[in-house]
Amino acid sequence: MKISAKSWLLGLSLLLITGVQVFSQSSKPNFIIIFTDDQGYGDVGVFGHSTIKTPNLDQMAFEGQKWTSFYVAANVCTPSRSAIMTGRLPVRTGMYSNKRRVLFPDSDGGLPAYEKTIASLLKESGYATAAIGKWHLGHLPQYLPTAHGFDSYFGIPYSNDMDRVNDVTAKVAFADPKFEYFNVPLMRDTEIIERPADQNTITKRYTQEAVKFIESHQDEPFFLYLAHSLPHVPLFASPDFLQTSARGLYGDVIEEIDWSVGQILSSLRENGLDRNTYVVFTSDNGPWLVYNEQGGSSGGLFGGKGTSYEGGVRVPTIVWGPGNVQPGVVSEMGSTLDLLPTFCNLSGVSLPSDRVYDGFDLSETWNRQSKSKRDEMFYYHGDRLFAVRKGDYKLYFFKNNPFGYPAKVEKLDTPTLFNLNTDPSERFDLAESHPEVVAQIMKVAESHQSNMVFGETQLEKIIGQE
Amino acid sequence: MKISAKSWLLGLSLLLITGVQVFSQSSKPNFIIIFTDDQGYGDVGVFGHSTIKTPNLDQMAFEGQKWTSFYVAANVCTPSRSAIMTGRLPVRTGMYSNKRRVLFPDSDGGLPAYEKTIASLLKESGYATAAIGKWHLGHLPQYLPTAHGFDSYFGIPYSNDMDRVNDVTAKVAFADPKFEYFNVPLMRDTEIIERPADQNTITKRYTQEAVKFIESHQDEPFFLYLAHSLPHVPLFASPDFLQTSARGLYGDVIEEIDWSVGQILSSLRENGLDRNTYVVFTSDNGPWLVYNEQGGSSGGLFGGKGTSYEGGVRVPTIVWGPGNVQPGVVSEMGSTLDLLPTFCNLSGVSLPSDRVYDGFDLSETWNRQSKSKRDEMFYYHGDRLFAVRKGDYKLYFFKNNPFGYPAKVEKLDTPTLFNLNTDPSERFDLAESHPEVVAQIMKVAESHQSNMVFGETQLEKIIGQE
Repeated sequence: MKISAKSWLLGLSLLLITGVQVFSQSSKPNFIIIFTDDQGYGDVGVFGHSTIKTPNLDQMAFEGQKWTSFYVAANVCTPSRSAIMTGRLPVRTGMYSNKRRVLFPDSDGGLPAYEKTIASLLKESGYATAAIGKWHLGHLPQYLPTAHGFDSYFGIPYSNDMDRVNDVTAKVAFADPKFEYFNVPLMRDTEIIERPADQNTITKRYTQEAVKFIESHQDEPFFLYLAHSLPHVPLFASPDFLQTSARGLYGDVIEEIDWSVGQILSSLRENGLDRNTYVVFTSDNGPWLVYNEQGGSSGGLFGGKGTSYEGGVRVPTIVWGPGNVQPGVVSEMGSTLDLLPTFCNLSGVSLPSDRVYDGFDLSETWNRQSKSKRDEMFYYHGDRLFAVRKGDYKLYFFKNNPFGYPAKVEKLDTPTLFNLNTDPSERFDLAESHPEVVAQIMKVAESHQSNMVFGETQLEKIIGQE
Repeated sequence: MKISAKSWLLGLSLLLITGVQVFSQSSKPNFIIIFTDDQGYGDVGVFGHSTIKTPNLDQMAFEGQKWTSFYVAANVCTPSRSAIMTGRLPVRTGMYSNKRRVLFPDSDGGLPAYEKTIASLLKESGYATAAIGKWHLGHLPQYLPTAHGFDSYFGIPYSNDMDRVNDVTAKVAFADPKFEYFNVPLMRDTEIIERPADQNTITKRYTQEAVKFIESHQDEPFFLYLAHSLPHVPLFASPDFLQTSARGLYGDVIEEIDWSVGQILSSLRENGLDRNTYVVFTSDNGPWLVYNEQGGSSGGLFGGKGTSYEGGVRVPTIVWGPGNVQPGVVSEMGSTLDLLPTFCNLSGVSLPSDRVYDGFDLSETWNRQSKSKRDEMFYYHGDRLFAVRKGDYKLYFFKNNPFGYPAKVEKLDTPTLFNLNTDPSERFDLAESHPEVVAQIMKVAESHQSNMVFGETQLEKIIGQE
């Protein structure tokens, strides 16, 4: 009797397990990108922060993969966002400039119609798509998410510090921020629905929209791009989180984002979607160090936002997908450039053959912990190739202030070389002792540059000035 | 029938659960301290290192408590070790000096017989006790672990870089270390059993000794003090780990220690002791930064070994005890000074009333996540009160080189003040803007100093010079 009862339970278990597996194999996976703004490498518990509490991100990292050498393709907002969306370097897509490094409310440019975003490609393959949060790839109708493959959009189209009202000084506006100081619009699709956007509740409202989207798309594959407009300054948190973190206002903001991550993952679990969804958490560039305690931390890395030192471009990244993603810590290279080819591979979508991609398919690293296909990274600052990483080593051709501002970039007389695996804080220049490595990376850089075709810059176009 | 089978299984489960609980409540808990040498705050995966892989410590932190503001009582070896053993500040026990900051092979001093270690107190209460690894509280027989409450000792009695042979320069000896360059003894109890100690296998042999001790003490409560002599320079790893870490030799060493942690926890699980044992992992001081890539990293903290900046005295700490320790991240203060009173409380041992203790009982924080009883920390550098932390704020009276060497300590004209919760990297001096906090901590410091009775220094006694 005991044996037969056990067999019955075993049978039931097998049925449940098999059912789940069949579902997971028969349907295309869902994808969610959670993208934060100016969050530093060190601003997550499992990435080493001592007073910001991120239990949801910590749990996500423990269940999934913590990527410790994951890069964005630019050290400021607009070009970084163009790269995650297109899988192409900003210099190819025109989303770069040495004069105006990001788009502003007076900009007349944006992501060109020619470019295909992750959303465009997945939508063609039957995915439901939604963009929630900060866009910053053009706020005119022809550049908005709805013109680039997203079925819907809800969010602030550029940075949350733009449109500052005239009668408030920057010092006041950032030290004790009120949302009325920043006349930024909140949009639904192509319409402005609130201005100034009430930023106190913005993280909460993005989250509610995201959960609603997940709940209403249980029967078709979906792609959700949730790009928080925080912790970019000015900082805002909802009353539930305000003055609750030991880290102060910046910590309140991150802890609300951590709560939001928990809501998203819970919603996936509750709706039985967790085993068929990949969630990637990452940030758009390093911390804005010149804002002192209102800016974040790059942990043990050197430099911050506005630099191509590691602290400016290496971002805290977690890849999650229970049953698919093999849990562990991955210290090999990855990049936001790689998400487009990886998602396409996982969903059976072919990459367009009429353009150059700068990303690699990471799906085998995610699912089987195979070696990462990325072994090189090209770090641009505007149109200048600031540095190149190949394997363990990073070679710098330029330098600037490690705090990013003032933004002056200078060519080095001779390149400097760092081993990022043995010296993650970039303390020891090895150029003199390793001339063969310098020579090797110089060749990689030359080959890359000789093949580069620059797109026409979109960031210098100003409304009424063309 | 289904119901009765379920009931039977339920009954069996309850029996098993109850059995475990009864055992856990009826016997005194075991304690294990795993103490590393010069491992920095940033040299563990969950504390933020990007290329050192520590899956066992990460898992331990996830199952237990990760303490992010846990302090040692001194920024170098001997005084720090005296504090973890006695629960008393080094200035009280005589384990301090401004001239000779640690014990050397020619030292004639050590931990005075008057002092009671954790081992002495637990032994009086029926515990089996063992010390394995580095001692550094006196290598003459009257100071060794066997004279201070330990039933047995196996290890190197002082630092692994001492007794350097005359014909090898420091540069050669540390850059490409061979154990023959360092004529340090390996002892069993009070006898030297090997000299020079073969340091290539030292971590492995300590681990084997530790596991053997655990396996042979299943029926009586035990206290195991496992003090690794690494990653203090010179660095050594066994062939299984040599040249396997992306971080280089330093990473090899930490990854072997991580393996060792895994062996200890596995042994506890396999012997059914895991639910009745508390394991504390921590380090004796910050990383020895002047050794460059052979030294560790304090992550995002300022300074290293030899300083009382956070990077010199805040150490990566994990408290583990399945079923007892409430998992989570604790960012309140704790200290190695607190282990003695905490262990005593958990095992029902009374603290001697004839002396002053500087530690607090943390058991309620461990078991119930209650607020930590520690709200102050006094940072000594020799006999000088270098700084005082009270709540969020740390007030400095002295300064020195953040790399620790040269070791010159200078009195500040006016104290500097940092908020360690909002500014963990100690970037922003708040003394001018927060005079009331300065005044409050000045009072705390004065009160502490007016009550301090200094012990006679033991560190300046040299063999044949008294």
